[in-house]
Parts: sequence; structure tokens; C-alpha cells
Amino acid sequence: MAEPQGPARIKHKKNRLEAFSDGVFAIAITLLVLEIAVPAVKLGVGSGEVINHLADEWPVYLAYFVSFMTIGAVWIEHSALVDALDHIDGVFMRLNLVLLLFCAFLPFPTRMMSEWAGNVPAERVAVVFYGIVLLVMTLMLMLLGRHAERQGLFGDDAADERKEEARVKYQLTPSLIAYVAAAVLGFLSPRLGVSLYLLIAIYLAIPLRDIRKMLRKRA
Amino acid sequence: MAEPQGPARIKHKKNRLEAFSDGVFAIAITLLVLEIAVPAVKLGVGSGEVINHLADEWPVYLAYFVSFMTIGAVWIEHSALVDALDHIDGVFMRLNLVLLLFCAFLPFPTRMMSEWAGNVPAERVAVVFYGIVLLVMTLMLMLLGRHAERQGLFGDDAADERKEEARVKYQLTPSLIAYVAAAVLGFLSPRLGVSLYLLIAIYLAIPLRDIRKMLRKRA
Amino acid sequence: MAEPQGPARIKHKKNRLEAFSDGVFAIAITLLVLEIAVPAVKLGVGSGEVINHLADEWPVYLAYFVSFMTIGAVWIEHSALVDALDHIDGVFMRLNLVLLLFCAFLPFPTRMMSEWAGNVPAERVAVVFYGIVLLVMTLMLMLLGRHAERQGLFGDDAADERKEEARVKYQLTPSLIAYVAAAVLGFLSPRLGVSLYLLIAIYLAIPLRDIRKMLRKRA
Amino acid sequence: MAEPQGPARIKHKKNRLEAFSDGVFAIAITLLVLEIAVPAVKLGVGSGEVINHLADEWPVYLAYFVSFMTIGAVWIEHSALVDALDHIDGVFMRLNLVLLLFCAFLPFPTRMMSEWAGNVPAERVAVVFYGIVLLVMTLMLMLLGRHAERQGLFGDDAADERKEEARVKYQLTPSLIAYVAAAVLGFLSPRLGVSLYLLIAIYLAIPLRDIRKMLRKRA
Repeated sequence: MAEPQGPARIKHKKNRLEAFSDGVFAIAITLLVLEIAVPAVKLGVGSGEVINHLADEWPVYLAYFVSFMTIGAVWIEHSALVDALDHIDGVFMRLNLVLLLFCAFLPFPTRMMSEWAGNVPAERVAVVFYGIVLLVMTLMLMLLGRHAERQGLFGDDAADERKEEARVKYQLTPSLIAYVAAAVLGFLSPRLGVSLYLLIAIYLAIPLRDIRKMLRKRA
Repeated sequence: MAEPQGPARIKHKKNRLEAFSDGVFAIAITLLVLEIAVPAVKLGVGSGEVINHLADEWPVYLAYFVSFMTIGAVWIEHSALVDALDHIDGVFMRLNLVLLLFCAFLPFPTRMMSEWAGNVPAERVAVVFYGIVLLVMTLMLMLLGRHAERQGLFGDDAADERKEEARVKYQLTPSLIAYVAAAVLGFLSPRLGVSLYLLIAIYLAIPLRDIRKMLRKRA
Repeated sequence: MAEPQGPARIKHKKNRLEAFSDGVFAIAITLLVLEIAVPAVKLGVGSGEVINHLADEWPVYLAYFVSFMTIGAVWIEHSALVDALDHIDGVFMRLNLVLLLFCAFLPFPTRMMSEWAGNVPAERVAVVFYGIVLLVMTLMLMLLGRHAERQGLFGDDAADERKEEARVKYQLTPSLIAYVAAAVLGFLSPRLGVSLYLLIAIYLAIPLRDIRKMLRKRA
Repeated sequence: MAEPQGPARIKHKKNRLEAFSDGVFAIAITLLVLEIAVPAVKLGVGSGEVINHLADEWPVYLAYFVSFMTIGAVWIEHSALVDALDHIDGVFMRLNLVLLLFCAFLPFPTRMMSEWAGNVPAERVAVVFYGIVLLVMTLMLMLLGRHAERQGLFGDDAADERKEEARVKYQLTPSLIAYVAAAVLGFLSPRLGVSLYLLIAIYLAIPLRDIRKMLRKRA
């Protein structure tokens, strides 16, 4: 059997990068739940008190939610970028590996934020540390996009609309600035910093493009 | 090489959503086992007593089984729905992310149920909490189905039979009502609630359609 | 775009079952390492003593190895069976889910075997318990094969040689008997039982068919 | 429907081996983060001291980084090798399983290195143990490549350039020697050993081939 040459083989390489990346994203996002500990409850305690115990853990849930939405948003960006590519090269594979390195590392600062909640000086460190990891992830996504553009990985025949879309995606400068702002604010007031991370993650997850389309359709 | 346009690209997006979702489902379902602790056994204790120790852990096994079957059933529903789609949009991707958020969260209430077993007021809270998570998962599946229908994601050419099948799948109103009933019952009697979750999961996992076909074939 | 009808769609369903199953197998096999604890080492202890500490943990490594090879062997069988199928049905999906249930459960009896090592009455229980889980996994594989044959899932056009190969794979009666023997022996002498599990896993992992081919080639 | 014969089926087998391997690589690489514990911080401690606590954990981060880059490099080699193959056989599947066995095992020596950091005699054992696992992984990769060549798994029609590329990849003799040197050095001076592992991982991850291409392009 003749083996697939050129294009087919190149697509295959892209597929395997996607499979491996999807695996790491999916595992990192799912491991987050292991950080949520069930509070110990003494015998003879009423249901209301148990609910209070659970409610006291809100920083843990918040950290879970923020990290889940952030990894989810990165997955969506990554998926849009790689989807628009014609092929990948060895440098792209390695830059991608560094993105995954920080993505897989995120459960650690997440745990830091939830374990140190309530201890303000420690919270400060955790929130800034967390922000730096998010910052690096965004930087890596931008680097991937720039490398793809410079090396012509989008292909010559790529539909312009599609290239445009991918380009928009990695023009992440606004979220880069937002992360720096959140980290600085987080050092002054940890809770404000976390709230900002939450807002950025929600913002990134909102499908503005599609909502606009749906509204136009209805009108 | 000319890149795939329109359909092929759309299929590709769908494939990546499936790969990521399958990853999260598979990890969530497999992480459940980490919650089962091996009971400490003292030296000099007989085999019969060891078996008793293991048997005393039945709520842990039950919680494992219920959660495994529930995630399994959700995977089957999800797989049938996405399979029937012609393409997906950005809103579908985000709604799917919220479904995964709750699915990946399930190991936490599972652990709650098994750790608080025997402490009735805490069990009540755990069983209701667990039910709410299942309820939201079912709601998200329904939302995904409705969004797909309204936005025409099934495609115009979709075989009617196939659309019908997917529609049946996300008409999950009965299981929605059953989860509300189980949560309410669970507050009154935790064990009754868990038993109901078990019954729903088993019911959802029974391939009624196929069994009917097989019976007809034999007749 | 017209959606794929019949065959293509059916293949797609099979692909998704494979993706999900591969995920569960891969996670179960990789989670095993979490059970291996690093022994605490006091300051001032020499390197030789540290090696002794590590060597004392041999039952843990053995349990890791046996479980890894067993899940690996099941993956190979599963892969050969599903590969030979023309399509799958809803019953196959659910039977497969039960197989995965026990596969994902295996890290628990693995931990039992390594934690209770040295405590003979507890070891007895662990080894028998472990054997029962392996037995059920083998039974589920056989059930999957029989269901596929009865419902004609291999397809009418399937090459006879290929069907034959798959059939051989799920005629697992010998390993079924071996597991029963190992469990019974394990109750009398736990170490003998574990050794037998090890032998079965190694035997299942040996590619007899290919070795024969290679020998013929050389001759 | 006629089922795919010969080539298509063979490709399918290769795809499933890739899916399973990608799963194990992705999980092993992502589980590493679970080994990083958040240091306990007392109330009333300043932010500076918290940063010191975190900084004291540097061997843990180093171990995380080295293991992540090593698994990443192995994934890249594995991906290049399997990509160049025309088909696989049963022996290849089993050899691959042994490679995965050691890859999935790596989080254990990683934890050993980070937990025993600072205790020189124990560090010695950990660094040598770690090196042996890396050595076996490299050996298994070489074995996979040699088996593929001897059994003609690259196919007769394979483009020579492509075969050449894959051959270069598994001529891992230099990294084999480097691992032996690192393990020996590590016994004399653990920190020197770890630094060498770090250098090898970074070296393996550098895309020399692509960088050369990019430089030529600019010139």
C-alpha cells in the first residue's frame, strides 16, 4: 500500500497534536475537582450547620470555577487556532508543549488560592502567582499564532475569512493587559483580583460572534 | 494543498468537541475510584472480619456505582445528540463546556455521599446536593438539544428518523422530574433518595430501543 | 451538506465508543502509579538502607505490574474485537460500559493487595477480591463477543479470516478457568495466587500469532 | 456495507495505538502536578515569608519540569516514529505497552526526587532510580524502531526521506549514553545528575531540524 504523501501526512501530524493537547486540557480541567475536600462533619450536627460548613468553602468553589472556565476558554482559543492551520512544524509542536506545561500546572496555583483563602498575606502571593501562570498561557497562545503566521502555516489557499477569524483569536492583547491588571490588583486586594480573573474567564467564554449572528437572524 | 472548506471543516470542529468531551467524561468516570479508601486492617484479624470491614463500606461502592452509571448514561445521551448534528456553533461549544463543568464536578458530591454515610443530617445535605448536580446536567443536555434544533444544527438533509431519535433523547423531562422527586425524597430519607438515583441511572442505561428490536427479530 | 448516511454514521458511532473506551483504559492504567507511596526516609540514613526501604515495597511494584499488564491485555483484546466489527448497537454500548466499570475499578483491589501485603488473612481476601474483578472483566469481554456474533455485528461481508481472529480472541474460556484457579489458590496461599495472575497477564500479552509468523519468515 | 480491507483496516489499528498512547502520555504528564504540595502557611506570616516557603520548594518544581519535558520529548519521538510507519504488528503493540508502562511509572521516581531533596544519601538513590527509568524508556523507543525496520513496518513505498527522518529519531544512542552518564554522576553528586537530566530533556525538545530550516529561509 502506498503511504499517504504530503498533505495527508501533514494533516495526520496536526491530528495527533490535537489529540495529545485535548487529552492534557481534558485531564487538567477534570483534575481540579480533586482539590475540593469534603469538610469533616461531627455526629449530632444538624443539616443547617452542614450547609454552613459547605458554604464556608466558597473560595474553593470559586477557584474551581475560575480555573475550569479559564482552561475551557484556552481550549476554545487553541481549537480555533489549530483548526485554521494548514499544517504544523516542529517549532509549533514545542511551543504547544510549553503551553501545555503551564496549563497542566494550573491545578497547583488553584489549590494555593483555595488553601490559603482567609490568610491575606498568603492570598496575595497566591493570586499574583496564579495571574502569572495565566499570563504565560496567554503569551504562549499569542506566540503560537505569531509563529503560525510568520512561517505560513495557515497555507496559501486558506480562506481569508477563516484566517481573519484565527487572527482575531490570538490578538489576545486585551486579555494580556487584563491579566496584568488583575495580578497587580490582586496584590493589593486578593478578592478583587480573583473577581477580575472570573470576569475575564466569563468574558472569554462568551460567544460574541455567534450571539451577534443569532440576534441578526431573529431581526 | 487546498484546505478543506465548509463541510469538512465543520465536521472537524465537531470531532474536536467530541474528543475533548470524551476525554472529560472518561476521566471523570475513572477518577471516581480514587474516592474508595482501603480500610485499615490490624494484624491478627481473621479473613472473615476483613470481609466485614469491606462490606461495611457498601455506601461507598453504591455511590461509585450510581455515579459511574449516571456519567455513562449522560455520555450515551451526549453521544447520540452530537452524532445527529450536522455541525456545531460557538454557543453549542460553550453550553457543552457548562455540561462538562458539572460532569467533572460530580466526584465531589459522590465523595460527600460516601464520607457522610451513616450521619443522617449530613447525608440529607449530600443527597440533595448530589441531586441538584444531576438535575443541572440533565437541564444542560436539554438546553444543548433545544439550541441545536432552534439554530438548525441538525441540517436540512438530516434523515427524519435520525432527527426523531435525537429528539427523543433530549426530551429528558421524565428524568428531570425523577431527579427533583429523588432530591425531595432524599431530604426526607437519604437512603430512599440514593435508591431512586440508582433506579434512574439503570433505567437510562437500558437500551429499550435495541431490546425491542432484538425481541422482534426473534419473533 | 448532506450528512453521511448508513455506513459512515455507523462507523462514527464505533469510533466514539473506541475513543471513550481508550480514554478509560488509558486513565485506569495510568492512575495505578498514584497508589505507590514514597517511603519516608529519616535524615542520616545511608543509601544502602534507602535501597532496602524501596526493596521492601516489592508487593506494591508487583501489584502495579500485574494490573498494568492485565489492563493492557484487556485493551489489546478489546481493540481486536471492536476492530473486527462492522457496526455496534445500543446493547453493545451498554455491555461495554459494564466492562469499563470493572476496568476503572481495578485500582481499588490493586491498592488492597499492596496495602495488606504481609498480613496473610487480609491478603487472602484481597487476592480473591482481585481475582473476581478480573473474572468479571473476562466474562464481559466474552459477552461482548457473543452479542456481536448473535446480532451479526461483524457484518455479512467480513473477511472470514478476520472474523476467525476475533472469535479466537473472545474464546477466553482458558483464561476464565485460570482466573478461577488463581482465586481459589490465592485463598490458600496469597503469593501463589498473585504469581498466577502475573503469569496469566504475561501469557495474554505474548503475541503468539506474530512470533510464529516471524519464526516462519526467518526459516 | 463492505468493510475496509487491508490498508484501511491496518491504518485503523495504528490509529487506535496512537489514541491509547496519546492518552497515557497526556495523563502521565498531567498527573505530575498532583505531586506538588502547597506548603502550610501559618496565620500572621508576611507575604515575603510565604514567597520564601514557595521558593524553598524549588526541587519539586525542577522535578516537575524535568519530567514534563522528558515525557514531552518521548511523545515527540514516538509520534515521529509511528507517523513514519505503514502499519504495525502485534509485537509492536506489546513493545509499545512496555514503553507506556515505564512512562506511566515516571511520576513515582519524580515524587521520590522531590520528597527526598536535601537528604543526600536518599537523593543519590532517587536520582539513579530516575535515570534507570529514563534509560529503559529510551531503550524501548530504540527497540520499537529496530523492530519496525526489521519487520518492514515502514512499507516498501515509503519515501526515503521520511524513513531517514524516523531512523535518525530512534538512533538515540547519544541520549542513551547521556542517561548512563547522568545516572553515574547523579550517584556522586545528585544535583549534578538532575541538571544533566534537565539538559538532555531541553536538548531533545529543541527542534534543530526546523530551526535550521527557518535560518535558511531568512538567509
